Amino acid sequence: MNVTVRGRTQHFRTVAFDAAKNHVRLIEQRLLPHEFNIVATKNFCETAGAIRDMVVRGAGAIGATAAYGLAQGALGFRGSDLGKFTRQVESVYQTLKAARPTAVDPVNAMNGVRAAMRAGQTVGEQQSLALGAAEEFANEDVRHCEAIGKHGAKLIRNGMKILTHCNAGWLAFVDIGTATAPIYAAQTQRKRFHVFCDETRPRSQGATLTAWELAQQKISHQIIADNAAGHLMQRGEIDLVIVGSDRTLGRTGEVTNKIGTYTKAVLAARHKIPFYVAIPLSTIDWNLRRGFDIPIEERHESEVLGAWGVISNPHSAGGNPRSARRAYVRVANPASRARNPGFDVTPPDLITGIITPAGIFKPGELWPQRRELGFNR
Amino acid sequence: MNVTVRGRTQHFRTVAFDAAKNHVRLIEQRLLPHEFNIVATKNFCETAGAIRDMVVRGAGAIGATAAYGLAQGALGFRGSDLGKFTRQVESVYQTLKAARPTAVDPVNAMNGVRAAMRAGQTVGEQQSLALGAAEEFANEDVRHCEAIGKHGAKLIRNGMKILTHCNAGWLAFVDIGTATAPIYAAQTQRKRFHVFCDETRPRSQGATLTAWELAQQKISHQIIADNAAGHLMQRGEIDLVIVGSDRTLGRTGEVTNKIGTYTKAVLAARHKIPFYVAIPLSTIDWNLRRGFDIPIEERHESEVLGAWGVISNPHSAGGNPRSARRAYVRVANPASRARNPGFDVTPPDLITGIITPAGIFKPGELWPQRRELGFNR
Repeated sequence: MNVTVRGRTQHFRTVAFDAAKNHVRLIEQRLLPHEFNIVATKNFCETAGAIRDMVVRGAGAIGATAAYGLAQGALGFRGSDLGKFTRQVESVYQTLKAARPTAVDPVNAMNGVRAAMRAGQTVGEQQSLALGAAEEFANEDVRHCEAIGKHGAKLIRNGMKILTHCNAGWLAFVDIGTATAPIYAAQTQRKRFHVFCDETRPRSQGATLTAWELAQQKISHQIIADNAAGHLMQRGEIDLVIVGSDRTLGRTGEVTNKIGTYTKAVLAARHKIPFYVAIPLSTIDWNLRRGFDIPIEERHESEVLGAWGVISNPHSAGGNPRSARRAYVRVANPASRARNPGFDVTPPDLITGIITPAGIFKPGELWPQRRELGFNR
Repeated sequence: MNVTVRGRTQHFRTVAFDAAKNHVRLIEQRLLPHEFNIVATKNFCETAGAIRDMVVRGAGAIGATAAYGLAQGALGFRGSDLGKFTRQVESVYQTLKAARPTAVDPVNAMNGVRAAMRAGQTVGEQQSLALGAAEEFANEDVRHCEAIGKHGAKLIRNGMKILTHCNAGWLAFVDIGTATAPIYAAQTQRKRFHVFCDETRPRSQGATLTAWELAQQKISHQIIADNAAGHLMQRGEIDLVIVGSDRTLGRTGEVTNKIGTYTKAVLAARHKIPFYVAIPLSTIDWNLRRGFDIPIEERHESEVLGAWGVISNPHSAGGNPRSARRAYVRVANPASRARNPGFDVTPPDLITGIITPAGIFKPGELWPQRRELGFNR
């Protein structure tokens, strides 16, 4: 999507590849929203480091980063010995896999690249196939998000007020994003609407990443405390909710997403406000039989007990990000501890529809339509 | 309630009067939870300043502060000219009233003090009556909270997990508090239970004030992000919700309280978890006919866009509060704005009961029982 830096607007993908230099180029997400920077990783070890250190995050984005990282490692090989080359690629694969051990996207993405490489007879052929497959993985991620946008934009009518939670935006994918895709598509169609971003405590991805994305695309938006959504719904100020999902159960239609998603779904149901979940097909889990079995990660309590930001004057606008000093402040009582579940599970009865690249489905339609949705067992 | 300072445990009221020095003594709430300090205001102007600058906040606490401030101003008068004295008292009254123009508690409290003074024939008699009436106002506030505790403690059984929102604790009153009163009473009865404090963004009164209170009373508790309550309810980890209220409509049973209260009530209803509101009778509004007409204050957007705390290392415990530096960090995207409604309205169908000093009532019972509850028109 577009980013305006010092008055100049340019298109950036979250993850891109510079073939001339054999560099992976990433938006440095840890500095957002206060600073925009592109990081170039010079070899696959640096690329693995960028995944590990959260320079890049989000399912689609780390998948593409790992795919490019594998191609980068393959292209970095000097020589023509196929045996040595294959061992090097295996080592690159393991290094990138270990960078985020619980994530499935990097593994799936790299498996695709490796499968494509097998058609090559020489080191040179395999290198070229690796790069082609990585580019194809990234382009397919973009096409899927575009398709979500095409289907989801139909839900957005002029004058609507839309609530989002957390960040399932273009920063979490290669471009466009999932929950944001209908919003960006509706903007292209010149529809007028307003977005409320839940700040999404405790990590505040709504206030930081989603708000930054929407501001860059010049979309009318406001940040609200997570506590305020119910009140706004009660006063008729929200017409539609769109969120993303980390894992959707194909058998039940249950949706795992950032903590607080379930709360917004309960509120939306009470107010008869449509609640949609936008997902790529790769996040559908066809095996698990009930949401209660999804392990809910308990994250570090410091996230709840304080906040990260830049030291500012509360009565001035954001200040100059270049001179800003990033700091963690402890908000909570020093002697108190916290619980910090990272995700929750929303049951299908609260979900109006699931927006996929293949169309919009009711949660109960996923399983009957599993063949069309790519589940082949 | 008890506060432990450098190993010594002592009882403190939020607001007290030092008759020997003619000082009002207040817990400095702006430094909590990072620093505990008692401020002594030396004259009524300083007392008004403490109300205005939020050294003291909360309905009961600012009522008692204004009552003491009026007595302080009366006692500060030198001479025996009743006319001059009466004009001085009127000026004190106006100064204290102007300190928090939208609050009704200071005005009600001071009207009570002035009414008591009328029985005096001399300056000396009126001064003494003023002090007695102020002390009586503060003591009555404490008795009301004790009565709320007595009734509410019956709801708490061994092993329960209780959710609270915001701070309706002893810091908001002279002592004990309202939403916390059943908790403190149950502790006295040696019941075992655990409290979850909603952090209560955007001002975080749950993470700061309520957590500090509970820690001082050695009550088992954890802070959670406002987003986490729904998930905990879903997993059966919350048995009871108790909140306070800024204004409860006697005619309808609708409850105005800190933003996010309505959301917790909706969640509790879905999970069939009892949802109680603890209030002194003085916060019942017998006139207003519908909650929709309650004006909802839109507060400064900086509250949503960032957070106040002390600069810390996120991976160590609270640090040394004496060396702590308080700062505001801007969390949100610098170019984005916020909506910040301060309160919401919870309808009676979501409220299991209203805990008052006169007993526990269903929301619909307030109006039929209005005579018993002190509404005399």
